[in-house]
Amino acid sequence: MMGIKTIGWVGLGAMGAPMALAAAEAGFDVTAFDLSADQMASVAPAVAGAASAREAAQGKDLVGIMVATGPQLDAVLFGEGGIAEVLSPDTVVMVMATVGPDAIEKTKERLDHVTTHLVDAPVSGGVLRARKGDLLMMVSGAPEDTDLARPVLDALASSAPVVGDVPGDGQRFKVVNQLLCGVHIAVAGEALALADSMGLDVNQVYEVLGAGAAASFMFGDRGRRMVDGDHDEARSALDIFVKDMGIVTQTARGVTQEAPLAAAAEQIYLRGRRQGLGRKDDSVVFRLLLGDMD
Amino acid sequence: MMGIKTIGWVGLGAMGAPMALAAAEAGFDVTAFDLSADQMASVAPAVAGAASAREAAQGKDLVGIMVATGPQLDAVLFGEGGIAEVLSPDTVVMVMATVGPDAIEKTKERLDHVTTHLVDAPVSGGVLRARKGDLLMMVSGAPEDTDLARPVLDALASSAPVVGDVPGDGQRFKVVNQLLCGVHIAVAGEALALADSMGLDVNQVYEVLGAGAAASFMFGDRGRRMVDGDHDEARSALDIFVKDMGIVTQTARGVTQEAPLAAAAEQIYLRGRRQGLGRKDDSVVFRLLLGDMD
Repeated sequence: MMGIKTIGWVGLGAMGAPMALAAAEAGFDVTAFDLSADQMASVAPAVAGAASAREAAQGKDLVGIMVATGPQLDAVLFGEGGIAEVLSPDTVVMVMATVGPDAIEKTKERLDHVTTHLVDAPVSGGVLRARKGDLLMMVSGAPEDTDLARPVLDALASSAPVVGDVPGDGQRFKVVNQLLCGVHIAVAGEALALADSMGLDVNQVYEVLGAGAAASFMFGDRGRRMVDGDHDEARSALDIFVKDMGIVTQTARGVTQEAPLAAAAEQIYLRGRRQGLGRKDDSVVFRLLLGDMD
Repeated sequence: MMGIKTIGWVGLGAMGAPMALAAAEAGFDVTAFDLSADQMASVAPAVAGAASAREAAQGKDLVGIMVATGPQLDAVLFGEGGIAEVLSPDTVVMVMATVGPDAIEKTKERLDHVTTHLVDAPVSGGVLRARKGDLLMMVSGAPEDTDLARPVLDALASSAPVVGDVPGDGQRFKVVNQLLCGVHIAVAGEALALADSMGLDVNQVYEVLGAGAAASFMFGDRGRRMVDGDHDEARSALDIFVKDMGIVTQTARGVTQEAPLAAAAEQIYLRGRRQGLGRKDDSVVFRLLLGDMD
């Protein structure tokens, strides 16, 4: 192969859509499919629309998959109308979804008879950074494959280090990342809820403590939304952490590693979904812990 | 009173000693007492030594107390040889220890018949920042008292906002601060332990994730020591968080606020002390969670 020129893209959600646009703007010929026609319209005409995932993938140099869950990844590749059947032995398949190391390793096994070129590249960073091609991507795969994917990675990310030479290592990094992020968001909510319950001015707490040793990226980012009561429009839905903390605790279990804080945070996110807050911004954990969801 | 010129200082521990030095260097006449003669020698001659807490406090404009625990604060003020008996109605008493809001409110009650000028000013920031007068202090008390203490606060801290007009509010801010710091240290250990258990290069995990959405001050600071295995010389002893997470969960209980992450972190610190790690650096939680304490 002379290098990646054409990209088939599956999944135009909150992150997938701006990422596909960033790839198109970097000069790649991107053809995308999403179950939502609205989402396909939102990236036209820079990104061409396809009638099916299979049509989007067929004959492309690289196929990028940005779905939400492991079962969705499975369905896209191997389900009814799945794209595995139309891939060539040269196609690079790049999975950018957070599905956990186990799901990627199973995908690698099942995909090997079609193409061996699987790149594992989950992302971190929000929608705004996705649109600017400014994500962090944690990349693993065979060196020839990550080298081939490099120009695409550079279009999507400002930092895309190779963190391992087998698919799965990228997901392992992402698991550690989500453990930290999920706990940091939950503890920001817990800390501000305690401040409020003690009668403190949560705005001042946010300002004073966010500048010191208690600082975290998430306390700065989500803490602002908590203090402002700004969680109806989800910039990052609570449901994502229901899924991701599940992957974290399951992965930790698989290597017999206790993870008491991740486990405690997972319970908070599960409670939030149970109370109907799954589509709210994850900063809603503040009000959830405060017991103030009227 | 014309303003604070003389300071009686009680408590020259890891934080108290550099703080007393910073006050002396700012031009205050500081006389200090500590149970350890070595600690008194370490700040001489800039800080004068006294034969007892009572001698240090007698006749001073302000008495600064930087002990480790609530019971120690009680003993210094009201125990045998306690300083309350030698204070005048004009003396400003400034408590910089982290003892929790309940302990400060009880102190205020008991001290009122001697002096009403109690300033609650717990600190955040490590030894190095203490030495440079660069701490964060969370200050509360009657406005006339915090105004009087202001030149001393400015000598010790680069930021010392007034966060409430009654003693106890400073401690409430500090409780929220410690909740965040204690959980952030524990989750840094948990995340790096999981990374290690999955066979990842923890150094690369530290570098890649510490630059993104997973960042926290504590992941940057303690994570470095965890990755380096640098926890034998305690820069911040695990015992401090045994005490402080106890104050956090007790305070949360007092306002009927659940705090599941603080509670989970407290168990980790308690386990560390039980295993004989109380005097180690708190970054030892990494190896504790890894189960690798040989």
